[in-house]
Amino acid sequence: MSSTDRIYNFSSGPSMLPLPVLEQAAAEMANFRGSGMSVTEMSHRSKIYIDIFDETKADFKRLMKVPDTHEILFMQGGATQQFSAVPLNLIGKTGKADYAVTGNFSDLAMKEAQKYGEINIACSSADTNHTYIPAQEEIKLSSDASYFHYCSNNTIYGTEWKYVPDTGAVPLVSDMSSNILSKPVDISKYGLIYAGAQKNMGPAGVAIVIIDKAIAGNELPYTPKLLSYQTMIDTDSMHNTPACYTIYMIGLVLKWLDKQGGIEGMEKIKSEKAKVLYAVLDESKMFIGCAQVAARSDMNVTFRTGSEELDDKFVQEATSAGFENLKGHRISGGMRASIYNAMPMDGALALADFMREFERKNS
Amino acid sequence: MSSTDRIYNFSSGPSMLPLPVLEQAAAEMANFRGSGMSVTEMSHRSKIYIDIFDETKADFKRLMKVPDTHEILFMQGGATQQFSAVPLNLIGKTGKADYAVTGNFSDLAMKEAQKYGEINIACSSADTNHTYIPAQEEIKLSSDASYFHYCSNNTIYGTEWKYVPDTGAVPLVSDMSSNILSKPVDISKYGLIYAGAQKNMGPAGVAIVIIDKAIAGNELPYTPKLLSYQTMIDTDSMHNTPACYTIYMIGLVLKWLDKQGGIEGMEKIKSEKAKVLYAVLDESKMFIGCAQVAARSDMNVTFRTGSEELDDKFVQEATSAGFENLKGHRISGGMRASIYNAMPMDGALALADFMREFERKNS
Repeated sequence: MSSTDRIYNFSSGPSMLPLPVLEQAAAEMANFRGSGMSVTEMSHRSKIYIDIFDETKADFKRLMKVPDTHEILFMQGGATQQFSAVPLNLIGKTGKADYAVTGNFSDLAMKEAQKYGEINIACSSADTNHTYIPAQEEIKLSSDASYFHYCSNNTIYGTEWKYVPDTGAVPLVSDMSSNILSKPVDISKYGLIYAGAQKNMGPAGVAIVIIDKAIAGNELPYTPKLLSYQTMIDTDSMHNTPACYTIYMIGLVLKWLDKQGGIEGMEKIKSEKAKVLYAVLDESKMFIGCAQVAARSDMNVTFRTGSEELDDKFVQEATSAGFENLKGHRISGGMRASIYNAMPMDGALALADFMREFERKNS
Repeated sequence: MSSTDRIYNFSSGPSMLPLPVLEQAAAEMANFRGSGMSVTEMSHRSKIYIDIFDETKADFKRLMKVPDTHEILFMQGGATQQFSAVPLNLIGKTGKADYAVTGNFSDLAMKEAQKYGEINIACSSADTNHTYIPAQEEIKLSSDASYFHYCSNNTIYGTEWKYVPDTGAVPLVSDMSSNILSKPVDISKYGLIYAGAQKNMGPAGVAIVIIDKAIAGNELPYTPKLLSYQTMIDTDSMHNTPACYTIYMIGLVLKWLDKQGGIEGMEKIKSEKAKVLYAVLDESKMFIGCAQVAARSDMNVTFRTGSEELDDKFVQEATSAGFENLKGHRISGGMRASIYNAMPMDGALALADFMREFERKNS
């Protein structure tokens, strides 16, 4: 099997990376551009590595239109480490924070924050097992919250926020792990955005944090040094050795993204891919979408047949046909097709055909 | 330049990796062993990835002879994150801990621990700018310490502990970032060992922790979930997505290490390499070793000429000749040759020749 005999991998993360990125990484692995070294072997303080790091950061800033008021940080521990870092750094202002609970990860983030202050659940979709996103008027904001936290795309349940919550003077904090780089974001509206790399950006092991510099510097006294945003700002993410190779791979993904037309280009492509799959659900008499139509995620398409036996059969036959990782998360069941940026349109079209054929054969 | 036109990279970390490891990683990058996926793309919950993870852990356990009383964890954030995790998890027992300060990183670890309890500096080599390792009788132990922490090899100053401190009933905690896998360790003597990957084990972004399961489970209430050793033990290091690709590369390094005769084989090789370079220092009328002879590290050989100008000339000419990253750390000055496991004997021999030739030409 050659490197081009690749399967369609619908994993929710870690997930597909663009083939040209993997091929470039392979070609540069033992000797990066004539340097005589692998990127894995470079001192993080060396000019050759700093150039890679700076270029990655500059590309991210340009593509995401990050204003100068905000700093871009590369941290370790993924989004889960940010569940702790956010309250450790930000809740000290008033001792309170508001959380929207619209899925598994926002619930975990909320529970972790309870260690550090008083948490108000401003809205929740738990009443329907997270099939929808609460409307602005359903959000019960506290005027004295240090920040408002929400997860912009719920990987497990397949729902996505279609609007930016208005929280007035309270800083907006968002976990964008599963839809970052898929559409334009007005960064100026946010106090802080974070995202684990392993869905739309690169291998697991890094979270990118975009922080309004004005809200850093008030961490709780027992904040671990490496989780202090101020420390990371002051050291340009190099208080210690960062996850150098993962950052290099994110850089390669950003170069690829640029060639797809940047964030705006990617937005068109991802919308088309999602339409292809949701069209199957809308036409089908067998497959049922799990998310309410208005809240459907363009990144994670969740569905079921209504029969666990048939769900299992679908996943099994899809796997045999080269569609990998379609089984839904254990806490939600059913099926899930994660169609992040690196999933080619061909993958969405092929899965749509497979679904229609499966329905025809099994009706 | 082909992948074999590689320089000798004496970086203190991230540092050289074995060429066969890099070549295998390159060959498997876009399609891991016919799976149709890169390791970077695999779900961390999938069988194919769990097999990689389990094999890496089993190889580490066998090579390091880790007893069943101890658990092996793969955490993120490198050794620096452990500077916080160690006190957060262990200091609660008595509120106090003992630290040996024998270099920059043990000093940073000690200062971080001061956030979480009362710290006793049990011994320090600061009086000579860390040229030696205190003897057992110089260590002033507290009977009520929750643990005793020391750094087994001081990367910046080039000193290494040649004995295991006897701390009685107080659990022994060691940062082995820069000499793990270089010699046998009696793990049963330790409550906890940790090591950042980027010197002897693989790319940056992972710390391996070896913990006596009996001492876990008493973390301070504000310990971030991801820094809780008990959480990591309970979830086999998968409370969240680990740094999957870095762990895979550590696995490749362990397979390579096995072929060198395992830890015992590596101990012989690293001792020979160090002897070659220390012999140059002992013979030389120009180069002066920075560490006292009894404390010399087999991993980081630190030296100077006594003239900053000549030091600069040496580093410059060495770089031109293909010996990279020989400049000493900014806080110590002089030169440093880091000769971790992946540095071939040829590299040490070639550097020794270069040093002798430089002395001949400049005397």
